[in-house]
Amino acid sequence: MGKFWGSRFDGSTDSLADEFSFSISYDCRLALYDCIGGIAHARMLGECGIIPKSDAKKIAAGLKRIGKKIESGQFKFDPREEDVHSNIQSALKKDIGAAADRLHTARSRNDLIVLDMKLYCLVELNLTIEMISDLQRSILEFAKRHREIIMPAYTHLQSAQLVLLAHHMLAYVEMLERDKGRLKDAIVRMDTNPLGSCALSGSTLPTDRKMVTELLGFLATTNNSIDSVSDRDFIIESVSALAMMSMHFSRMCEDLIVWATSEFNFVDIDWSMCTGSSIMPHKKNPDICELIRGETGTIYGNLNKLLVLLKGLPLTYNRDLQLDKPPLFESVEKMQLMLQLLEKLFQTLKVKPDQIAIQTGNESFYSVDIMEYLIQKGVTYREAHDTVGKLIKGCLDQGGRIVDLTEAQLKKYHPKFAADVKKLLKPEISVKRKKSYGSTSPTSVARQFKYWEKILN
Amino acid sequence: MGKFWGSRFDGSTDSLADEFSFSISYDCRLALYDCIGGIAHARMLGECGIIPKSDAKKIAAGLKRIGKKIESGQFKFDPREEDVHSNIQSALKKDIGAAADRLHTARSRNDLIVLDMKLYCLVELNLTIEMISDLQRSILEFAKRHREIIMPAYTHLQSAQLVLLAHHMLAYVEMLERDKGRLKDAIVRMDTNPLGSCALSGSTLPTDRKMVTELLGFLATTNNSIDSVSDRDFIIESVSALAMMSMHFSRMCEDLIVWATSEFNFVDIDWSMCTGSSIMPHKKNPDICELIRGETGTIYGNLNKLLVLLKGLPLTYNRDLQLDKPPLFESVEKMQLMLQLLEKLFQTLKVKPDQIAIQTGNESFYSVDIMEYLIQKGVTYREAHDTVGKLIKGCLDQGGRIVDLTEAQLKKYHPKFAADVKKLLKPEISVKRKKSYGSTSPTSVARQFKYWEKILN
Amino acid sequence: MGKFWGSRFDGSTDSLADEFSFSISYDCRLALYDCIGGIAHARMLGECGIIPKSDAKKIAAGLKRIGKKIESGQFKFDPREEDVHSNIQSALKKDIGAAADRLHTARSRNDLIVLDMKLYCLVELNLTIEMISDLQRSILEFAKRHREIIMPAYTHLQSAQLVLLAHHMLAYVEMLERDKGRLKDAIVRMDTNPLGSCALSGSTLPTDRKMVTELLGFLATTNNSIDSVSDRDFIIESVSALAMMSMHFSRMCEDLIVWATSEFNFVDIDWSMCTGSSIMPHKKNPDICELIRGETGTIYGNLNKLLVLLKGLPLTYNRDLQLDKPPLFESVEKMQLMLQLLEKLFQTLKVKPDQIAIQTGNESFYSVDIMEYLIQKGVTYREAHDTVGKLIKGCLDQGGRIVDLTEAQLKKYHPKFAADVKKLLKPEISVKRKKSYGSTSPTSVARQFKYWEKILN
Amino acid sequence: MGKFWGSRFDGSTDSLADEFSFSISYDCRLALYDCIGGIAHARMLGECGIIPKSDAKKIAAGLKRIGKKIESGQFKFDPREEDVHSNIQSALKKDIGAAADRLHTARSRNDLIVLDMKLYCLVELNLTIEMISDLQRSILEFAKRHREIIMPAYTHLQSAQLVLLAHHMLAYVEMLERDKGRLKDAIVRMDTNPLGSCALSGSTLPTDRKMVTELLGFLATTNNSIDSVSDRDFIIESVSALAMMSMHFSRMCEDLIVWATSEFNFVDIDWSMCTGSSIMPHKKNPDICELIRGETGTIYGNLNKLLVLLKGLPLTYNRDLQLDKPPLFESVEKMQLMLQLLEKLFQTLKVKPDQIAIQTGNESFYSVDIMEYLIQKGVTYREAHDTVGKLIKGCLDQGGRIVDLTEAQLKKYHPKFAADVKKLLKPEISVKRKKSYGSTSPTSVARQFKYWEKILN
Repeated sequence: MGKFWGSRFDGSTDSLADEFSFSISYDCRLALYDCIGGIAHARMLGECGIIPKSDAKKIAAGLKRIGKKIESGQFKFDPREEDVHSNIQSALKKDIGAAADRLHTARSRNDLIVLDMKLYCLVELNLTIEMISDLQRSILEFAKRHREIIMPAYTHLQSAQLVLLAHHMLAYVEMLERDKGRLKDAIVRMDTNPLGSCALSGSTLPTDRKMVTELLGFLATTNNSIDSVSDRDFIIESVSALAMMSMHFSRMCEDLIVWATSEFNFVDIDWSMCTGSSIMPHKKNPDICELIRGETGTIYGNLNKLLVLLKGLPLTYNRDLQLDKPPLFESVEKMQLMLQLLEKLFQTLKVKPDQIAIQTGNESFYSVDIMEYLIQKGVTYREAHDTVGKLIKGCLDQGGRIVDLTEAQLKKYHPKFAADVKKLLKPEISVKRKKSYGSTSPTSVARQFKYWEKILN
Repeated sequence: MGKFWGSRFDGSTDSLADEFSFSISYDCRLALYDCIGGIAHARMLGECGIIPKSDAKKIAAGLKRIGKKIESGQFKFDPREEDVHSNIQSALKKDIGAAADRLHTARSRNDLIVLDMKLYCLVELNLTIEMISDLQRSILEFAKRHREIIMPAYTHLQSAQLVLLAHHMLAYVEMLERDKGRLKDAIVRMDTNPLGSCALSGSTLPTDRKMVTELLGFLATTNNSIDSVSDRDFIIESVSALAMMSMHFSRMCEDLIVWATSEFNFVDIDWSMCTGSSIMPHKKNPDICELIRGETGTIYGNLNKLLVLLKGLPLTYNRDLQLDKPPLFESVEKMQLMLQLLEKLFQTLKVKPDQIAIQTGNESFYSVDIMEYLIQKGVTYREAHDTVGKLIKGCLDQGGRIVDLTEAQLKKYHPKFAADVKKLLKPEISVKRKKSYGSTSPTSVARQFKYWEKILN
Repeated sequence: MGKFWGSRFDGSTDSLADEFSFSISYDCRLALYDCIGGIAHARMLGECGIIPKSDAKKIAAGLKRIGKKIESGQFKFDPREEDVHSNIQSALKKDIGAAADRLHTARSRNDLIVLDMKLYCLVELNLTIEMISDLQRSILEFAKRHREIIMPAYTHLQSAQLVLLAHHMLAYVEMLERDKGRLKDAIVRMDTNPLGSCALSGSTLPTDRKMVTELLGFLATTNNSIDSVSDRDFIIESVSALAMMSMHFSRMCEDLIVWATSEFNFVDIDWSMCTGSSIMPHKKNPDICELIRGETGTIYGNLNKLLVLLKGLPLTYNRDLQLDKPPLFESVEKMQLMLQLLEKLFQTLKVKPDQIAIQTGNESFYSVDIMEYLIQKGVTYREAHDTVGKLIKGCLDQGGRIVDLTEAQLKKYHPKFAADVKKLLKPEISVKRKKSYGSTSPTSVARQFKYWEKILN
Repeated sequence: MGKFWGSRFDGSTDSLADEFSFSISYDCRLALYDCIGGIAHARMLGECGIIPKSDAKKIAAGLKRIGKKIESGQFKFDPREEDVHSNIQSALKKDIGAAADRLHTARSRNDLIVLDMKLYCLVELNLTIEMISDLQRSILEFAKRHREIIMPAYTHLQSAQLVLLAHHMLAYVEMLERDKGRLKDAIVRMDTNPLGSCALSGSTLPTDRKMVTELLGFLATTNNSIDSVSDRDFIIESVSALAMMSMHFSRMCEDLIVWATSEFNFVDIDWSMCTGSSIMPHKKNPDICELIRGETGTIYGNLNKLLVLLKGLPLTYNRDLQLDKPPLFESVEKMQLMLQLLEKLFQTLKVKPDQIAIQTGNESFYSVDIMEYLIQKGVTYREAHDTVGKLIKGCLDQGGRIVDLTEAQLKKYHPKFAADVKKLLKPEISVKRKKSYGSTSPTSVARQFKYWEKILN
């Protein structure tokens, strides 16, 4: 058939125009959803007496056969058929003959494409959520394997305080949990059936849209036919959530890239996630982390494409909307691939405790601990802060260490200092003494482990 | 005091560097939240015995006084104090003296700024939601005032079918309801108290973060101190939701701009929302609609700013994060202003029924109705579609009208045609005969009215 | 060989990692440039005595054979070879044997990929410039075919003044000329040979980079090896220029979409650039124009991808840079396709003079002409402006026309009015009386025709 | 006067609409250009006999007085006047009385705003170019001060080869030179006078636009009045060039942030460009570098704002275009501030040669040198590459160093090895032996110094 709308035309479209406008090269991803939607629609048409029940059954049986071929990869898409709908329609006609001519009753490509896209999103976003949980589990296991390791944490990429590596990892798990939340919210919001809104105004035929809603398992039926065919919020919202997740990935990968330098030297990324150099045989480059960081641009750009696409479009359907597909598909596929890669990456990531220990020797890490020691003795924050500043500056200037100061020397900085302050100056003590909820203390981290084990199992 | 961190420095920052890095010109918006957070924090410090209760009371009283000045616009921000925190701290010191030096105990600017920003977002997004409801009500009232009006609906900006103007308006109400949903979801997700996470690792002092959570009315307390100070998801998610809403605005305004042309001539936008021309005295330009459409770029750009800002930042806090504020503030303020403008715009918008009627005379509007007439007589979709195509082409070619065809002439196109098909060719009939759920029929629109009246009251 | 850098590895990369990181699916576009660069490089190596001349000749001959296969479409890319370089290298090894092992001397993939990308850009941007000229010629011919037609011009989409359709078209030609200028500037700026910069620091071998520069026809040789391999400005600048051109396309297409509505009805877009509707047989939708408008999002998004990609990357090469290719290739290919489509669109576009004439009847179009009539009689701008405002309002309020006012009635508005003012109220007069340089008068338009004929031939 | 176009209106605009649409808060930056343009325009009107010469003189004198007030900061902008044009017009009327009413003859706000914006861009971009040269000089001086220092260069943030720090710095100078080139090209392209295009179609008055062009020093006069008022390319192109420059800044700052970590420890950023921590007194944070990196988002976002703004706007002027100003102004002002900050930063930046030396001890840095040693002895690239891979792996596995291997041991890896290969393993030798044009050898760097001294003086 080539095109759905050919009947009244004198001329034919230009071949370059076809190349530019045909969408079958990418919307073939929707083929199975097109069949599933068609089966439900045909059944409803039959039940409501709009088409003969016998034809409805033929359509359903034909679409099931086509669906199975699609699932097994045997269905051949014809690039001369402009889109997924015409491909399926033609295949159906070939399979069941005249009855196929009744399938497109009381629907239009305007509502049909929204249906297909929603079904795609519902399936793929749910799958993505599962993959996020897999990644969270991988990070959680990594954190538990290294629960003893204390490392510097950074602000401004300047070493600041000592934390458990596991605590840092659990921050990633938190970030990913919010990503899941956003995808779940998007799923609930989009879970409404648009089919039967037709081109934009509904149908004079006695359809039962709620039957289709139930057959397809949607939560609800869209209430306004114009909005049904104009709305692409669900696509933008999906990619927006993925863009935030890709931002999270870029931050994790940046951490890893920095930690894997020979200067930091905290971790060893597995060779399976690295490459070498064509000219410098000693190199081990964190390529997968770099590419994941780089793909942030891809997902951001896709969000940008979609937002620009919709800007200023009058209601209802405009052909521009066809271009919502490539950015969505690419974002979903790339993010799923990256989720799996990161899962493997944390499974194989090695930590270098000895190298990390080299970087935890600086007494500056304890400045807050010392300051709070004074505060607990009744000193004000301001005075304690200034005192510690002078103490550290004093040691730096004279090349000494706090741990070597006598009680008398300490008391010159502040009379409330006693020798016991020097007991604070150990990594284990520093993290263990943390008391606040959500802190990096082993107790707090253990509580987090328990929480996530429950959530993720 | 100037800067929080001045104590140990030999040099001083450059004045140009100050101009570049000081944030008081915009983060002054957070002053009230800074006080509110400080009051709760001080009370907790007192209750937990970390600072003297008497000092806690002084701090609370002082911050209340400062808060009142801020509310009444009497508080003078000092541009030489780098940010809102140092402004409040200095004012408190002046007011209550030494006790002020204890406020910054067991907190850091890293957790404090997240607290302030979350309080800002919670208040402003809730206000935005109310404003969206106001706009929805304004559109609903407009729709109800014009519930009889039938107009062309467009796909590809080509007139397609006839709909009730009210139905088109209710599509806007649907779009806005999703916008509210996204803001509500963002609110729930961000409603966790970060205060007490300190710089990044928590505190050794025996704080009770959950008390602060309760005092400030948060739903929960953040579970991981590193994530608490690194996370800016709530800002991006807020602006992302606003960006989608601005996209909706751009589509509504595009509709109105097109409808207000002398060629379409469907509506008359009130002079209060228009301007004239300096050189063409007859012009009445829909400036407010154009500016709202243009501001889409502003909100999109702000989302872009935030996403780029966060890309590739290692955990935890980095100074880059300071720049999250201007895009958020501008987006919130502009969107709130536009919500109010659109509310007024629909209150004053006039419809031109006579002009609209001129455009509804084309029989092509009924092609689907005629097609479905045939389908109801058992004709397949394909055959019915082709028949109507030939019928309309036939009339166009011969310059005739369907309504003037004899039954015999009609039957030449298809034997199932009878004279009663000509009864379909009236706007009122076309919309009234729509039966599907969510269609443009008066019954469906009345059902939508009832639904929204319940939701919005 | 699979990977260039495999020699010292114990493990092997993950298959998912390969899927994620292999670039051959898109960088195959660079294959010919890889050969061309290799031929020049090998010749230089031979001339400089770095490799045997006989080997240099074998390499050149082999690469020529491979290049011919690529040109004729016979070269088979192996998806298991990670990128274009390894594909060509493997093919060369198969073809000429051991001598192939000398090709990668004194170069690295870091400088090689920049070379290939620059050659691609130079060729494709020059081709794009020719296509822009073709489109300009098509618009110019269209303008000349309709040089008599007078139509309303719009500000704020409100009809403002009368212009020659040709003048409006020549605005498009101006826009496109700037697009060419930007591409030309980008070409000049990027026309420097990076090959021989090696990984980042240059080579200890006695290479002659300037010989390669000459052989490949570059304007100059890059001066700093670190910058040579880090720089991706030329890609961003190219896509940035294309993004502005796509913005121009979106404006042209918006004009055409509006003009093609049944309400404006100024033009008839050829069926070869339109599609129909599956459910509304009477529709003729301007799909190509809509898709071109929509692709603006694609090109903008690609620019965004590139900018985000580069943000915050430390020098020198990082693997993220691999992702510069898909956005560039898609942008170039889509823009070239759209250039050709628009060329055809204007070749087949029909104008509807009778319909346009219907919209030119409003006397408001002459308000500026009348105002300037008064100014020429010595009235100030302010007074003339106010007078015309009152005149037009007066006629609107009383339902009269200026052309029917008596001289006495006119003089009530302003004593300087005489009966001859009514002669101004004709479309032909309005455009003909324009005198300023660059105006819409037939003389000015003829001058522009002459100018562009010279430029474009 | 309030608004230019008030004469024929019955109602008045809404106060909220005014708040939303008035631009005086930001377009006040254009006031001086508005005067300068007005002076030239008035003189031309007088010379052409369109207005009395005496009035032209009064206007010019009045605008000069106003211009002086603006320059000295004494001019008071009235926020109730909607924009800069009405502010100047009102001030002129107050100053010279009735003659002021003739200024707006043969121009419109549509061409006037383009004139003002072009004059702003021409001045500010030229100033920006000078500031870039200043920064280049600052970097060049820094490079020359440290011309002896050899440091690791990185690919993938993995240490790769040794280079002169100065060579790395000269890469920055190259990047900045391209930035200047783009600004210069933009300047040439925009240097055309639009004034006299009026609203969109030109004027019937006998203006001499080329006289205005000469008086204002433009290179040329715009050729098409419709394009003149619709075009905003020059703004987008300017911000696009600035966005690429901000990307360069983000890369430089990323380098510095990484180098300033205690783990790399290559440089010491001056305290004047740093801040401390409120809770960790030992911290010295590279805030200015972080903020400059963060502002990349700001400039990218502004480019995005502008591109989105223009997307899909029909010709000619639409009110949306007003919003082109804030993104341009912010981009120009922030980039100029950052240029000055970076200039100071390099003036005060300290290098830590001893710390750098610690990181240059790894023999892997010489792998390419050793490989090329073999190639010079006739070994193929492939064989040399594999040999060096095995040599380095062998040493790593056995914990030995190449420098300690005997000639016999070396020959086991490859018979062409001789003891002299060990002479290569020194930083000074590594950089000195580089021969290729543009390499990091001292000779090449000296050549670059000479080149830039000539260019920048």
